[in-house]
Amino acid sequence: MNNIMNKLKGSPRRYGAFDDHAQEYVITTPHTPAPWINYLGNNGFYGLFSHTGGGYSFWQDAKLRRLTRYRYNNIPADSGGRYFYLKQGHTIWSPGYRPANTELDSFECRHGTGYSKINSRLGAIRSELLSFVPLDTRAEVHRLRLSNEGEQPQSMQLFSFVEWCLWNADEDASNFQRNLSVGEVTVDGSLLVHHSEYRERRDHYAFFSVNQAISGFDTDRDAFLGPQGTLACPDVVCRGQSRNSVADGWSPIASHQLDIELAPGESRDLIFVLGYIEVAAADKWADNPPSASRQSTSAAVPYLAPAHALAHRFADNDAVERHVNALKHYWQQQLQGFHVASPEPLLDRMVNIWNPYQNMVTFNLSRSASYFESGIGRGMGFRDSNQDLIGVVHLEPTRARQRILDLAATQKRDGSAYHQYQPLTKQGNSDIGGNFNDDPMWLVFAVSGYVRETGDLSILAAPVAFDDQPDGDAALFDHLSASFQHVLNKLGPHQLPLIGRADWNDCLNLNCFSDDPDQSFQITENRQGDVAESVMIAGQFVLFGREYQTLCEQTGRTQAAAAAADAIAGMVRAVETHGWDGDWFLRAYDALGRPVGSRSNQEGQIFIESQGFCVMADIGLHNGKARSALDAVADRLATAHGIVVQQPAYSRYYPEYGEISSYPPGYKENAGIFCHANPWIMIAETRLGRGTKAFDYYTRIAPAYREQNDQQLHRQEPYIYAQMIAGKDAKRHGEAKNSWLTGTASWNYYAVTQFILGIRPELDGLRIDPCIPASWAGFSVIRRFRDATYHIEISNPDGLEQGVRRICVDGQWREGNLIPVLSGEVQVKIIMQAL
Amino acid sequence: MNNIMNKLKGSPRRYGAFDDHAQEYVITTPHTPAPWINYLGNNGFYGLFSHTGGGYSFWQDAKLRRLTRYRYNNIPADSGGRYFYLKQGHTIWSPGYRPANTELDSFECRHGTGYSKINSRLGAIRSELLSFVPLDTRAEVHRLRLSNEGEQPQSMQLFSFVEWCLWNADEDASNFQRNLSVGEVTVDGSLLVHHSEYRERRDHYAFFSVNQAISGFDTDRDAFLGPQGTLACPDVVCRGQSRNSVADGWSPIASHQLDIELAPGESRDLIFVLGYIEVAAADKWADNPPSASRQSTSAAVPYLAPAHALAHRFADNDAVERHVNALKHYWQQQLQGFHVASPEPLLDRMVNIWNPYQNMVTFNLSRSASYFESGIGRGMGFRDSNQDLIGVVHLEPTRARQRILDLAATQKRDGSAYHQYQPLTKQGNSDIGGNFNDDPMWLVFAVSGYVRETGDLSILAAPVAFDDQPDGDAALFDHLSASFQHVLNKLGPHQLPLIGRADWNDCLNLNCFSDDPDQSFQITENRQGDVAESVMIAGQFVLFGREYQTLCEQTGRTQAAAAAADAIAGMVRAVETHGWDGDWFLRAYDALGRPVGSRSNQEGQIFIESQGFCVMADIGLHNGKARSALDAVADRLATAHGIVVQQPAYSRYYPEYGEISSYPPGYKENAGIFCHANPWIMIAETRLGRGTKAFDYYTRIAPAYREQNDQQLHRQEPYIYAQMIAGKDAKRHGEAKNSWLTGTASWNYYAVTQFILGIRPELDGLRIDPCIPASWAGFSVIRRFRDATYHIEISNPDGLEQGVRRICVDGQWREGNLIPVLSGEVQVKIIMQAL
Repeated sequence: MNNIMNKLKGSPRRYGAFDDHAQEYVITTPHTPAPWINYLGNNGFYGLFSHTGGGYSFWQDAKLRRLTRYRYNNIPADSGGRYFYLKQGHTIWSPGYRPANTELDSFECRHGTGYSKINSRLGAIRSELLSFVPLDTRAEVHRLRLSNEGEQPQSMQLFSFVEWCLWNADEDASNFQRNLSVGEVTVDGSLLVHHSEYRERRDHYAFFSVNQAISGFDTDRDAFLGPQGTLACPDVVCRGQSRNSVADGWSPIASHQLDIELAPGESRDLIFVLGYIEVAAADKWADNPPSASRQSTSAAVPYLAPAHALAHRFADNDAVERHVNALKHYWQQQLQGFHVASPEPLLDRMVNIWNPYQNMVTFNLSRSASYFESGIGRGMGFRDSNQDLIGVVHLEPTRARQRILDLAATQKRDGSAYHQYQPLTKQGNSDIGGNFNDDPMWLVFAVSGYVRETGDLSILAAPVAFDDQPDGDAALFDHLSASFQHVLNKLGPHQLPLIGRADWNDCLNLNCFSDDPDQSFQITENRQGDVAESVMIAGQFVLFGREYQTLCEQTGRTQAAAAAADAIAGMVRAVETHGWDGDWFLRAYDALGRPVGSRSNQEGQIFIESQGFCVMADIGLHNGKARSALDAVADRLATAHGIVVQQPAYSRYYPEYGEISSYPPGYKENAGIFCHANPWIMIAETRLGRGTKAFDYYTRIAPAYREQNDQQLHRQEPYIYAQMIAGKDAKRHGEAKNSWLTGTASWNYYAVTQFILGIRPELDGLRIDPCIPASWAGFSVIRRFRDATYHIEISNPDGLEQGVRRICVDGQWREGNLIPVLSGEVQVKIIMQAL
Repeated sequence: MNNIMNKLKGSPRRYGAFDDHAQEYVITTPHTPAPWINYLGNNGFYGLFSHTGGGYSFWQDAKLRRLTRYRYNNIPADSGGRYFYLKQGHTIWSPGYRPANTELDSFECRHGTGYSKINSRLGAIRSELLSFVPLDTRAEVHRLRLSNEGEQPQSMQLFSFVEWCLWNADEDASNFQRNLSVGEVTVDGSLLVHHSEYRERRDHYAFFSVNQAISGFDTDRDAFLGPQGTLACPDVVCRGQSRNSVADGWSPIASHQLDIELAPGESRDLIFVLGYIEVAAADKWADNPPSASRQSTSAAVPYLAPAHALAHRFADNDAVERHVNALKHYWQQQLQGFHVASPEPLLDRMVNIWNPYQNMVTFNLSRSASYFESGIGRGMGFRDSNQDLIGVVHLEPTRARQRILDLAATQKRDGSAYHQYQPLTKQGNSDIGGNFNDDPMWLVFAVSGYVRETGDLSILAAPVAFDDQPDGDAALFDHLSASFQHVLNKLGPHQLPLIGRADWNDCLNLNCFSDDPDQSFQITENRQGDVAESVMIAGQFVLFGREYQTLCEQTGRTQAAAAAADAIAGMVRAVETHGWDGDWFLRAYDALGRPVGSRSNQEGQIFIESQGFCVMADIGLHNGKARSALDAVADRLATAHGIVVQQPAYSRYYPEYGEISSYPPGYKENAGIFCHANPWIMIAETRLGRGTKAFDYYTRIAPAYREQNDQQLHRQEPYIYAQMIAGKDAKRHGEAKNSWLTGTASWNYYAVTQFILGIRPELDGLRIDPCIPASWAGFSVIRRFRDATYHIEISNPDGLEQGVRRICVDGQWREGNLIPVLSGEVQVKIIMQAL
């Protein structure tokens, strides 16, 4: 820590640094521009965890099963978390700085893969907090290690604090006339249990425990905080004595008191467990007669046995070490799936650690819960989750397979899909519905990616009923056909795909002519919808349609494959004929049939999406259109901080375009830098063989690169991607927003691994087709692929950007650039050559 | 102030006292058990205002047009408001105590009718803050008067602070991925304007101004608060210098800086205006070309003219005095509508000031926005608003008439009604829908009350289309018939009314057998609904049906009147036959046809609602059933803190009863004291002539009575009713919840004025039928009624509870107890006599 802090001295614009060896990001001050967070948990139990211990926990669904309360956009910011207070005489401090806010003698927070550590010191006391969700465990473990580094004995009181959420986070923040009357708790030794509504309709409860006898507790917020209470100085902490309060309505909390004496040199480990217990619905009454169910304190309550058992799994430090090591081992294994050593250590850092880590978080959470997503608005997105999957299929193929089947189950027979579904119920959200016409084809992308990675063609035969034909007899392949056909069934006047409510650009709402702020831009459709077309969907159809065609071929569906080829060719013609503006691809036709993203527009003349998708689909690759389009992107959309969505920004509201024109210029879809769409241009550049350019774009938004120079400007976490960076029309150009949960992660990973580094899984092997900066002398990749691990050495003696004519596999040279499917350790050597 | 504080010394359980002369409640400490609030505004522009200046403002609709941000159930509590900071050297304090929280040398908050005053002093500086919404004005005025009472000159910086809400309060608290990018402001001199989304779909903006040149401003929250900012010590305030920040996304605020010098004895008035401007949609672009619309600072921006004009209306203190006096005059006039002088000063205080005041607030806001209603959940309730109307029809007959027509417009042809509607749009909320089978008859109650008060039978012919027949030809009377018929069309196996989703007791959900916490108890119907019946609706049908019958008669609809009489007689028979349990009225039959509220039940044997409604409807009055039922209420349900809903409380969840059994015993519908239902028993007691008993019940829940002894136990505002007081099964028995917005207000007022004091408006005059404690020697009432003001003196020399055989009107004795409709000042004398 001291090393890193010393390095940072005199550079006030930095708040931390990477520790590549530990695979951690080290935040060296509590005073970051925003909460810099991490995610704990990987499969069901999740916690958001900021660098000062803020955040909250939930089981499966951030809306329906929120365990602890968190207040978004609060003053002070980032209020609420798993908090600790140490009281030594008149000094009160928090090991994580918040909430006591006492300045510390030293502080660092280390965010790692699925765990975080906050190390701090004040006076003689060193504190080390380790927080993680053990694998396959419905609990967070927080081990607080306190050490006396001084020469005098030290005595102190330690207070813990979490505030319970009354389960449904939306109701919890609005339905006070009910909520403030239902809170119930049980105290059983060191186990503080929140069981509001348990044994009514609920079969679950939560608990907060510590592995030692306590000297006091509180479960009533008012009693703990006092009448004027703030989290910075709760009344109980100030007086140094718990009130042993038992909550009865109002706001239940959990707070332990531990009185601690430390001899010089002594350390003490306190292991806190924040857990969630679900019993079989039929069993919830089994051990306790109804009339006693509301008893609030009890020496030994039978239904708490599972909670005691779960807490007991972490009764000692050996158990904690064992579990945290298992978690680290899991991640080591995961990250070995793709490992690069390139001339660019920052690239390596992204590809080897942080990008796949973020991919897994987006796969787990879709867009449901971050510091910008409140967890009550959106569940799992159809479009989102299909894309997220591309970034993790090589790490978690089994879970990816299940996710594909879950997503497909929300699709209807006509190919349309619920735009979102709740992770707890797996039911589509009917208040949003569907009719986002790009949605269906993303399923093709995900399935193709899964098959290419795993070779598991059997998934196509897996039975998945359509949402509107629950008893129907359908296989996954039928869903792909429905997706493909959905586009063809909805073609507009130019034979381009109708856009519906919106395509990937949610804010380009061409059928919503809204003059009422209470209308949702995205679900209001004032026009028939049979005119407005999307060139982006056209490109998407060609790109993913080819993957569909390949799947048809690979499963012997030759007739379907031929029909698909014809349809794709037709779409290419439509784009070349009606989707070309002269120097770049049009974006769309609006509901009146007028071009969008055209020189003929006053504003919004050129958009990123159609350039990206059409060139990724190789449209115009051989007639100069692709090159012209990408040159226009470079000329008109690229900035030092990434490529903006469109130009010129809309300076006023256009009812015919919708939400996109409602944002101030430079923000979000109105000419902000959407990091999600940038890799489309990177990939497109690789289709032209321009590796230097592709990589240049990569570095403009890649966190590790921005971390070096722009921490203060960027403001959000510099170890992961944000959805958006403010564009050049914005006053805050370069400032990031909406960090963590974004398709940016998987798309950048996909672009850099499969198109820049060029290691592409195919059904029959690994295609090796790097498209790199000419300056690179080479690079090496270790790639796990099915049953083999390929050690690939690529050298580039001639300073090329692209070119693999043959490869050497285990000492044997072969023509072409496909490494066959093998097993075991495989050595591959490649020398790039001009084609 | 000092007098009152002295009186309170040594009685720590009191936080304030009534000032009847000023018609104010005086809170003498900032440290009340909960925020004790007032409402500013009476017709469109509303503000919630706590005793320390917390709260928020909105235009018409607390969900859709929220002007300032407020965070419910926050830590610290009551965070957000129109805040002021004074910085004198190193001392920072707030005139309203919050948010600086510096202890003051003196403090009082006076809540009056539509205005509040916070008077405080620290050192030499006295501060008087007067806050109100002037009549017919879309703005709050906050006059801050600062006086130097010392002998030295005093210099200080004053900072104001409000935080803008991004209009839709629901979105504002959840949709951060959008909201944090859209904030826009304009600064024009002392006018700080929030215009996010203005000129897109919105035609409105808000502003915060002060009537003097400022020495600085801030509009960006981060700039004002600083990176670690709390409301208690914003960075700008601590450094004593604004940053002149211009918000660009994130969180726009408004803060002025004023540098103030006060000579000894000098006072300064600073007049802040928090206003809302709506322009015609067509005009929103008129004065400013689109491309310049997003300019954030400007010396003189044409579209701000209306804001300047509105602010300028309060440019000097004379204007403020004029407007606050007009507001006080309005309320004086209003409160003169009914004025009592009785042997009970606490009764007088309630009837003459606080109860009608609360009635007006509930009429204005229904259940939409209080410190327990977040403003995003419920709009105007159909059942609620019809009841609220009874409490204000004598004060605001014109607005009552409009409200009736608005409510009727949400009714469907079959008599059913949307349970709620949004006040801004007046559209029914389709996510809740209808099928609460008591809803329709409340319209009859409201209309009858309106006609009895005003004599305006013409309202019955007013055209009001049904919601599902928008082009249909219907008059209000058709709605009453539809309501009446709706009950008759939905009779169950015992010829009692089917309950539907629920009746008035929202939590008695007899057709919702729910085992899933994500189901709404109230809108989930798992059963057919053709079995479960409500005896309460039966009583309601008889009671209000007679009013319907009377309206038929008064409009010459003799056939309809006769049919109604038959139907009512049939319902009385059904209740007597199938709705009687032996000693009291049953509450209901459940979906399996089993009695609810019967001795045969293990828990929930007797309910308040059916006893109240059946006896109010005179069912069993002459055969002893009524008396038996009320004696059972006294025996089983009455407590020192009011009458509980039912007994014994449900100790477990009964799927067949729904939400009622999901509350812990003693809270809310599960045997809490619902103050709304208590007056039904009071009225019922008057039907038996038991005035002493009726009044006894009145005093148990009436705020002025509870204020005397139970402030600390009660915890909520002691000048207005709360919805619920914890029942005898609760640990916190006697503690109130859900203060302010409750039908409790109008029902208690109705009970005490029309049944205990016994002054009942009828079409042909005022019926005088007091039912009072035998101990009263008499009382007098001044009652405005149509074109007359009646000065009514009632003496009770024989210590009766009831009995008016003749009355003396302007010196002329007449038989009977009806004062005819007269005009001018009318003197009435009555001597109570045994009948």
